[in-house]
Amino acid sequence: MLSSIVAVGDELVGGFTLDTNSHWLAERLRLLGHPLKRVTAIRDRPAEIVEQVRRELADPELTHIFCCGGLGPTPDDRTFASLAEALGRPLVVWEETRARIERRVKRMHEAGLLDSPELTEGNLRMARIPSEPKQVFKNRRGMAPGVVYEQDGKSIFVLPGVPLELKGVFTEELEPQFLAGGSAATVRELRFMFAVEARFYPLMRELEEKYPDVSVGSYPNFETKELVIRCLGLDSNQVDEAIEMVRRRSGELGMAPQRRS
Amino acid sequence: MLSSIVAVGDELVGGFTLDTNSHWLAERLRLLGHPLKRVTAIRDRPAEIVEQVRRELADPELTHIFCCGGLGPTPDDRTFASLAEALGRPLVVWEETRARIERRVKRMHEAGLLDSPELTEGNLRMARIPSEPKQVFKNRRGMAPGVVYEQDGKSIFVLPGVPLELKGVFTEELEPQFLAGGSAATVRELRFMFAVEARFYPLMRELEEKYPDVSVGSYPNFETKELVIRCLGLDSNQVDEAIEMVRRRSGELGMAPQRRS
Repeated sequence: MLSSIVAVGDELVGGFTLDTNSHWLAERLRLLGHPLKRVTAIRDRPAEIVEQVRRELADPELTHIFCCGGLGPTPDDRTFASLAEALGRPLVVWEETRARIERRVKRMHEAGLLDSPELTEGNLRMARIPSEPKQVFKNRRGMAPGVVYEQDGKSIFVLPGVPLELKGVFTEELEPQFLAGGSAATVRELRFMFAVEARFYPLMRELEEKYPDVSVGSYPNFETKELVIRCLGLDSNQVDEAIEMVRRRSGELGMAPQRRS
Repeated sequence: MLSSIVAVGDELVGGFTLDTNSHWLAERLRLLGHPLKRVTAIRDRPAEIVEQVRRELADPELTHIFCCGGLGPTPDDRTFASLAEALGRPLVVWEETRARIERRVKRMHEAGLLDSPELTEGNLRMARIPSEPKQVFKNRRGMAPGVVYEQDGKSIFVLPGVPLELKGVFTEELEPQFLAGGSAATVRELRFMFAVEARFYPLMRELEEKYPDVSVGSYPNFETKELVIRCLGLDSNQVDEAIEMVRRRSGELGMAPQRRS
């Protein structure tokens, strides 16, 4: 059960926008027991979107693929059309989404925000999605829908790139229906002040041999002068044993971890 | 002249750490005229690092590949060993780096920070790099070096993942020697308050046809209620003409852009 993210947008790859969506999703997916294998940020170019989606589809380790961004009303939003090509499906106007956008446009017209109550081509392209979705989600905060496809034994989730909309669709609709029941990995951390990372090398080698299913990482922060040792694994007993070994052995080496706050 | 980033680290893909390095590099590289094609964040797994580096090497559009992170002293740092495999080169101890690390360890011992002045295996693995680097950079803020390789007509830059070290090596050493002389794309933006993004659709289609070499994007921010229209291209006259067309036509539609601050 591994996931991957394809984050689509010139603004990400151009260094204009920090990709907080992928960071947020990565944490949520870990906590839900669907950890990520990789995150790829790509440009709004159809050929590159198609290539990237095909790479994810061809990866036998992946069960869940998240495509984020590029669903908007303007011509630089190309995710649905490219996804249709990658999945080998025609684009169709999804009537339920079209009707929902129409109602929104009418309300905006009535509120004086739009000159006309008619759907424009810009509105309509948000309702034009690859055919045969497994499910189309509402998006209470915007017009572009969230959509799930099933293909090659994988689920492909398409989410809007606007952070509020992405988080809304994910937590309210996609998570309870598609991501419940996973087992989150157990994470335990110890923090050391002014510790020398290289001194942990022999201990970490030992942990690797003794607990091959626990992933052990060390993360120095040069601004706070803290070193974090992090153990992560599906077997919580093993993770607890591993972190206890770090605590005990570091104490013997004269490096006491900080009390947990 | 396109670049790509491979950001290595379980902490990124696990949602523990926000990948600010790639965002910072993306902006710098755009301003230096070496724009990114994609950014891929992957785990500290040798097979996945090798696969990803080989993907970048096989991409004919790329001239510069940046591998960031995973150069530290602990066993979870696997970038140099994996890169050696991807490049088909043996790992060698780089004497200049080894000697520099040795001097640092001695100084830390003299300052009472280390029990022993001897190099440990943890220290040594930071000096063990794939053979025949084009250049090895000092890293004034840490022990792991920065390194450049040339292979398959591409430059592969290896940078430490600690943000202060990455930025230091990049700006002080790598940028002046390897990235000078590029032509940055021209970027022009207009900001609109309370504008409806979908109304820009026909204008953006027209811009696409009239200025095929200018990339035009629209970016709504639902918190600030601002819409940014951004034009980017190598020909600054065309970018200026395109943004002027946005200004004029949006004015005709009754949507005045904000004054530039």
